[in-house]
Amino acid sequence: MKQKGFSTEVTPLYVCGDRFLPTGYREEKFKGLEDKIKAITSIEDIVAVELCYPAQFDDPKPMKEILDRLGITASIVMIDLFGYKKWGYGSLCSSDQNLRREAVELSQKGIDAACALGCDRVALWLGQDGFDYPMQVNYQEYWENTISAIKDIAGYRSDIKLCLEYKPKEPRTHSQLSTAGVTLAVIDAVGLENVGIILDLGHSFYSYENPAEQAVLINRSHRLFHVHLNDNYRYWDDDLIVGSVHLWETLEFLYWLHRIGYQGWYSLDIFPYREDGLEATEASLANLKALMKIAESLDQEKLDALQRKNDAVAVVNMLRNLVLRKT
Amino acid sequence: MKQKGFSTEVTPLYVCGDRFLPTGYREEKFKGLEDKIKAITSIEDIVAVELCYPAQFDDPKPMKEILDRLGITASIVMIDLFGYKKWGYGSLCSSDQNLRREAVELSQKGIDAACALGCDRVALWLGQDGFDYPMQVNYQEYWENTISAIKDIAGYRSDIKLCLEYKPKEPRTHSQLSTAGVTLAVIDAVGLENVGIILDLGHSFYSYENPAEQAVLINRSHRLFHVHLNDNYRYWDDDLIVGSVHLWETLEFLYWLHRIGYQGWYSLDIFPYREDGLEATEASLANLKALMKIAESLDQEKLDALQRKNDAVAVVNMLRNLVLRKT
Amino acid sequence: MKQKGFSTEVTPLYVCGDRFLPTGYREEKFKGLEDKIKAITSIEDIVAVELCYPAQFDDPKPMKEILDRLGITASIVMIDLFGYKKWGYGSLCSSDQNLRREAVELSQKGIDAACALGCDRVALWLGQDGFDYPMQVNYQEYWENTISAIKDIAGYRSDIKLCLEYKPKEPRTHSQLSTAGVTLAVIDAVGLENVGIILDLGHSFYSYENPAEQAVLINRSHRLFHVHLNDNYRYWDDDLIVGSVHLWETLEFLYWLHRIGYQGWYSLDIFPYREDGLEATEASLANLKALMKIAESLDQEKLDALQRKNDAVAVVNMLRNLVLRKT
Amino acid sequence: MKQKGFSTEVTPLYVCGDRFLPTGYREEKFKGLEDKIKAITSIEDIVAVELCYPAQFDDPKPMKEILDRLGITASIVMIDLFGYKKWGYGSLCSSDQNLRREAVELSQKGIDAACALGCDRVALWLGQDGFDYPMQVNYQEYWENTISAIKDIAGYRSDIKLCLEYKPKEPRTHSQLSTAGVTLAVIDAVGLENVGIILDLGHSFYSYENPAEQAVLINRSHRLFHVHLNDNYRYWDDDLIVGSVHLWETLEFLYWLHRIGYQGWYSLDIFPYREDGLEATEASLANLKALMKIAESLDQEKLDALQRKNDAVAVVNMLRNLVLRKT
Repeated sequence: MKQKGFSTEVTPLYVCGDRFLPTGYREEKFKGLEDKIKAITSIEDIVAVELCYPAQFDDPKPMKEILDRLGITASIVMIDLFGYKKWGYGSLCSSDQNLRREAVELSQKGIDAACALGCDRVALWLGQDGFDYPMQVNYQEYWENTISAIKDIAGYRSDIKLCLEYKPKEPRTHSQLSTAGVTLAVIDAVGLENVGIILDLGHSFYSYENPAEQAVLINRSHRLFHVHLNDNYRYWDDDLIVGSVHLWETLEFLYWLHRIGYQGWYSLDIFPYREDGLEATEASLANLKALMKIAESLDQEKLDALQRKNDAVAVVNMLRNLVLRKT
Repeated sequence: MKQKGFSTEVTPLYVCGDRFLPTGYREEKFKGLEDKIKAITSIEDIVAVELCYPAQFDDPKPMKEILDRLGITASIVMIDLFGYKKWGYGSLCSSDQNLRREAVELSQKGIDAACALGCDRVALWLGQDGFDYPMQVNYQEYWENTISAIKDIAGYRSDIKLCLEYKPKEPRTHSQLSTAGVTLAVIDAVGLENVGIILDLGHSFYSYENPAEQAVLINRSHRLFHVHLNDNYRYWDDDLIVGSVHLWETLEFLYWLHRIGYQGWYSLDIFPYREDGLEATEASLANLKALMKIAESLDQEKLDALQRKNDAVAVVNMLRNLVLRKT
Repeated sequence: MKQKGFSTEVTPLYVCGDRFLPTGYREEKFKGLEDKIKAITSIEDIVAVELCYPAQFDDPKPMKEILDRLGITASIVMIDLFGYKKWGYGSLCSSDQNLRREAVELSQKGIDAACALGCDRVALWLGQDGFDYPMQVNYQEYWENTISAIKDIAGYRSDIKLCLEYKPKEPRTHSQLSTAGVTLAVIDAVGLENVGIILDLGHSFYSYENPAEQAVLINRSHRLFHVHLNDNYRYWDDDLIVGSVHLWETLEFLYWLHRIGYQGWYSLDIFPYREDGLEATEASLANLKALMKIAESLDQEKLDALQRKNDAVAVVNMLRNLVLRKT
Repeated sequence: MKQKGFSTEVTPLYVCGDRFLPTGYREEKFKGLEDKIKAITSIEDIVAVELCYPAQFDDPKPMKEILDRLGITASIVMIDLFGYKKWGYGSLCSSDQNLRREAVELSQKGIDAACALGCDRVALWLGQDGFDYPMQVNYQEYWENTISAIKDIAGYRSDIKLCLEYKPKEPRTHSQLSTAGVTLAVIDAVGLENVGIILDLGHSFYSYENPAEQAVLINRSHRLFHVHLNDNYRYWDDDLIVGSVHLWETLEFLYWLHRIGYQGWYSLDIFPYREDGLEATEASLANLKALMKIAESLDQEKLDALQRKNDAVAVVNMLRNLVLRKT
């Protein structure tokens, strides 16, 4: 296994509320952040966590001490440009110049904080950048603002990888960085080498993307920096256990990550509203490992040959024989 | 106008948070419930509110005094079987017999509370009844439980109308009462005259229903008890301002409510995450009134004649001339 | 295996064209109908075919001879109310009384033809009944017409099962019999014992139904008469090879057919535009058998116990261990 | 009006069959191609047609004479890489090198033919390039093949604009050039100035794009070469009459075309299965003109000010007052 290893968000150990029950459907078992991180990285083979700046830590020093104590690393640091009232109408795309500047500066501080943790990649999920209603946004200013701000953030330090996480919608009805394609186009406009993409498997499913197809396209320009693993039913970001809905396409995605020599993290990003957070994370990892093993054992030459003949039926037969247990 | 009048939920004056910012994107302008009700019914022509039992009131007496003081009525009382931890895996469909009994008894108390307010209809939105994962539920017990519980609730008092609000998903990935059709089938199984349907316009849109078509089907068996008005983009319950996305189908829905002589409330149910709650409610009502006026002015005989000839093009032309302003 | 056995449509051996290439992407290997039926029922374990009246046969006598010669039976006879110009704006829902009468009489003749073949069930897929544009249809007449016509057809002979196949859209943008729920409501309105439902797995997927959940609901009132097996990507009737996209939900569907003691046919209904029709049918059957075997081997008591505890994570773990091959 | 004018496809005057009735639901009124072109350009203000090479013409000389005779022009020439059996598994993405070369050469000949007609833009809609099943395609070869072939086609003559029309699916379950974003990324990889985009309004709707947002992004890099106008219900390419479903977003799209100074054609692309082709085209144009007039009369400064304040409610109110007729 050439990749960095398995990572996870800590989110499953929070309450995971929704708009109908903001305080959530279950109790928090682990109270402080360190306890949460300790619990979730006690799962075998999880050796890193994603951290959120500044929501989870502001000063990197004590956070570094926690990570060291637990013998793990931060896989990526997410800049929180979505969880405060002020970003409600957007951060980088905002028509308010002061707000944009504040977002840029916060991101730059987050980059420094990530570096201080020994982490070489920073995530931007621009959850609030987008719109809800037709005619709500001046699209010209909106594209310029975001492209220019990403340039300012990524240009601040070329030694970190700035990772843009796209998503078609939620919390806005339309996100600005909605798909792999749009994000590639924005990266092209930004024009800096250290800007790339987080492909969140679920976000890709509910964009009606085939995640493997997009991963290969992104990788073609060396922009596949990070992946998030989870599942859903194609219409919404349900953040379910990995592989619990889309078996074949998850397998295909893992096959192509292997095939293109993806060397980043395999990071879990589920949101278990009702399920026990630890158990759901364990089940996700178990599904992920089982599918990775199958993906890596797949006869590439044979598959290549079938694909060259456009023989979809033979592919279906090959997959059945490879994957399904003989009872 | 033969119908009861315009009503609204009080929800827009709460914070309307989501899973990323549970405390919401804006401040609450009006603090107590009475202040909220007063503010929202100060909008011209809104003469009733929807109330939630027991979340908003437990004892009907002081609530009745508030309503009287404000000179308004309760259009419907919603039983809250979704906003507490205990209902997380379902209320009426639950495999836990004690929980089901508790849900039934709460609903019966809610019915009494509604009657004490002088309100003749009670709403059940079974938001937590459904499932998230394939294989999570024993569908046989699930259907029996829900049908039997609805029988117990509706059978408790035949002088109130029990109104079932269907919705395809959220907060579960799959709701049990998902569509007009499923709900009609359940009502048929229940077999009581006082069980009917709340057609929420947005829920209908994102079930890929045509709301007017379903309203007429529901009305055929005299089960159209209540309607909720809002809008969305077909994939999720965005709860946007009425008419802000689906102009033609909202108009068609209002036309058919008029045509079938719907005599219930026209009740707003929006969820303005970022917008001012009062302003968004006013805009919804203004759109609603404008479209109702057009719907009522529509030449029914002419439309009938075009429809009998299957002349969709002539219908499109008729609508353009009727609806769009000549600039 | 208590059910009747495996059946298929003959469609895969036709050219399977689309609107861009009506003559199809591949050649027809087998020219006449008998050759086609012979070829497709030469697949091991396929013992019956679906036939279309009057498109594939008008006189039942020679058709019966073909079936006898091949040693197979007709699983169901589909009345063709969709493949002729005259039904373009609907058959049973049509506002043209003469057309409706013609559709009813054709269906009655089809019933007689089915009986003459020794077949006890007749299918109605009302593909053209629905609408394309908002405001195109008078929904009051539309529902009355269809309900009344179904009554006339089913009432003609109570010794056959009239099987209504629902589908959300295509070829109309909105089908009248769109979902299991709507069809159950219509069946309730018709009020005859011999009217039931064809659950087409793919139609169910792209209605955002869970097919197992709906099968159990339909079965509750003894209306699950027939099933069609295929797959798609949730947005359209792609008619792909069984199990090629939705592994878990196909398995769950087969589990519940087994669990409720479904005794009808397991009938393939794929539409292989580009793939060899025989090979695609064989692959569908192989996937189907593999999944049925797993479904029947599933420990029901254990699953029931997990479901009663709402333990979705344990279900996911159980399925992984049961289904995925250990490499 | 700075743009080139109104154009249309001739498609509405063909039979417009589907997979259930390939010969279509209505009769062809006009038999030959010239008669069809004459009829459809007899609609007031339609001054150009889209032509398909080589399906509609092979030799440009007689075609040029037809156009001259009718006093119209060709707005664009579409290369037919979708309507023949041989392209069934793809043209430019194909793993068959000879087939790719054939597709490239055909496209180059089509470019010459367009030039001979005096037409400066050529359309590629790669309808067959994509896939149907998971694992069917080797995505690495697939992206390289298509990017390289587009380079060969566009590089053949820099004096024509090569216009790529994206579409999320149909006839394949997944198209390779699926969205504006993916197409921009491919154009970036191709690296030639004369490659741009056809934004088909309906294709954009059913990609869950906001068409105006994407038009502005595309225009940012000067790649918005052509637009197609039609409508649908978000899930499929229904190719309905312009504005018959999405009033607000069609208006917003037209507003932004006006705002960015789009100077290309406004070209209708509907597919009226059942409606009279001429009448449906006329209704589309009438809706289009009515909405363009409103879009052009919209107070840009006022809207800009509201957008800068993120005032979605005020925008909704502005639109109601601007668009809806006072009855």
